[in-house]
Amino acid sequence: MSEGGNGEFAAIERIRRLLPPAPEGETWIGDDAAVVGGTAGERMLLATDAVVEGVHFDLDLVDAADVGWKALAVNVSDVAAMGGRPLHALVSVVGAGADMLDRLMRGLADASTAYRCDVVGGDLSSGPCLVVAVAVTGTTDGRRAVLRSKALAGDVLYVTGPLGRSAAGLRVLRARAGALADQAGPPWERGSTGDSQFAELAAAYRRPVARVAEGLAASAGGATAMIDVSDGLGIDLDHLATASGVGVVLDTVPIADGASREEALAGGEDYELVFAAGDPDAVARAFAEASLRPPIRIGRCVPERTLRLLGADPLPATGWEHRLKPA
Amino acid sequence: MSEGGNGEFAAIERIRRLLPPAPEGETWIGDDAAVVGGTAGERMLLATDAVVEGVHFDLDLVDAADVGWKALAVNVSDVAAMGGRPLHALVSVVGAGADMLDRLMRGLADASTAYRCDVVGGDLSSGPCLVVAVAVTGTTDGRRAVLRSKALAGDVLYVTGPLGRSAAGLRVLRARAGALADQAGPPWERGSTGDSQFAELAAAYRRPVARVAEGLAASAGGATAMIDVSDGLGIDLDHLATASGVGVVLDTVPIADGASREEALAGGEDYELVFAAGDPDAVARAFAEASLRPPIRIGRCVPERTLRLLGADPLPATGWEHRLKPA
Repeated sequence: MSEGGNGEFAAIERIRRLLPPAPEGETWIGDDAAVVGGTAGERMLLATDAVVEGVHFDLDLVDAADVGWKALAVNVSDVAAMGGRPLHALVSVVGAGADMLDRLMRGLADASTAYRCDVVGGDLSSGPCLVVAVAVTGTTDGRRAVLRSKALAGDVLYVTGPLGRSAAGLRVLRARAGALADQAGPPWERGSTGDSQFAELAAAYRRPVARVAEGLAASAGGATAMIDVSDGLGIDLDHLATASGVGVVLDTVPIADGASREEALAGGEDYELVFAAGDPDAVARAFAEASLRPPIRIGRCVPERTLRLLGADPLPATGWEHRLKPA
Repeated sequence: MSEGGNGEFAAIERIRRLLPPAPEGETWIGDDAAVVGGTAGERMLLATDAVVEGVHFDLDLVDAADVGWKALAVNVSDVAAMGGRPLHALVSVVGAGADMLDRLMRGLADASTAYRCDVVGGDLSSGPCLVVAVAVTGTTDGRRAVLRSKALAGDVLYVTGPLGRSAAGLRVLRARAGALADQAGPPWERGSTGDSQFAELAAAYRRPVARVAEGLAASAGGATAMIDVSDGLGIDLDHLATASGVGVVLDTVPIADGASREEALAGGEDYELVFAAGDPDAVARAFAEASLRPPIRIGRCVPERTLRLLGADPLPATGWEHRLKPA
């Protein structure tokens, strides 16, 4: 069960109490994806996430195709954060007219191809606002799923890439849309087309990348706990630390080119993976074997359960809470 | 892939063309649920349906708990219409405040218990309108899934119960809400509480029943094709007949007590199952063995592919299209 800020962590706790607990060996509400048993005894991953106009996207800044991409990619990211790979997607679209639906589906089909995640069914409905809710299935191919809750004191903390690109992308798209409001066309096509940093940041916001290969490598390298950076590093690390009953002490936060320190810490929506692991050599080997750039070491898990430090300072637990329309 | 009227059948066809075709032995878009292969070789059912405020429900006529029930029940019905039983549900809720969320989840938990369909994960988001999107997994326990598309000329057509109760329930709720607008409380608690037909019809609308046991019995009795009555008998039978390449000739339409003929034919949302089967004795035996009332024989499949008759008249293909807010 993922959440979008605004008291929703408390709501999820209430929901958890309304429903029966998961049986031994399964994980239900409270991780990036659920881990359930199939009828043939195998383990299956299940996740769902909805994207909502005005909350998760603004059609003045992105194309409907980007929304379709993102709706699938954020779900694939949930599967990746369990050390799994996606299999199937179901898509519910509310409130899209014919033209928007076609563009949405084109972006969704792009992501489906990129992540080898087949769109096998869905539902269309009219409605007063645009919502794309996706549900995905996934598999760990017989390996144990990497939960949020199994990090140990002494584990090293890694992130799969520098942070802040998505938040910086939103910033530059907004700036360009405002500065060049008199020009026609979408903001990412206005102004200088030779600005590669602008293009890269805008793309990070419009078409976030789910780190499936990195999640598989982290799992192979012995990751004890993992989560994707959807809400913001401080918030997401706090989830992992709280679920695992450990503290976290960071030495560094890798900042993406063109992003600010604030965007890297609190921007969210980067969909890089943060994970804990006990054996740095095994992690390095697993990433090398998968021909991936090595993950970035950012700190360590410590026994003091409530500790959340970045250097000598408190690690800010701010992040993505209705970035488009602050609550 | 199910649909809510308003040109959406055409949209689904366009979407189908955008996406790769299902591999041999799987069924993707175009049936009540998708049939896909799991990693252990077993077959799995996947379905999704969203309910939207102002389109699928009106909170002046039903409680948020009813919305939660309905959101799960309509998905369970999609699994039932394949001859399967549900296993897991994922729930995305958009735009519900804390109080509404709690009531929604209570109704959803009721349905989860009733249908033995575990809610294993979900997503909460703020938003400008209330949407509950549910996705479910299901299984046929090794039996072949009953598609829409395998009915044969000569097959007998059955429905699992009389029709029109949901549409009649909406009508009486509206009437009571209007006539007793000065009274406090929800419409189903106003006026005479001894009116059992009102109560039954209102319940049929507020808490529709998915026919899981009936779907399993139909499958065991050799059903060749099956669909749930969600849009209206005429529309849903047309889907089955078109997918199967047969015509349909009905002798009768069973009308629920308190419903009109029009409501039985076009009301939709009854979630009774309509199925075709070649051997009436096998059907009768399967329903008797499951201790279910026998299904109602309504007609026959015929070789003339375009024929849609009710007695000597055309079978009206009208039905549920944005009943609350006509498009």
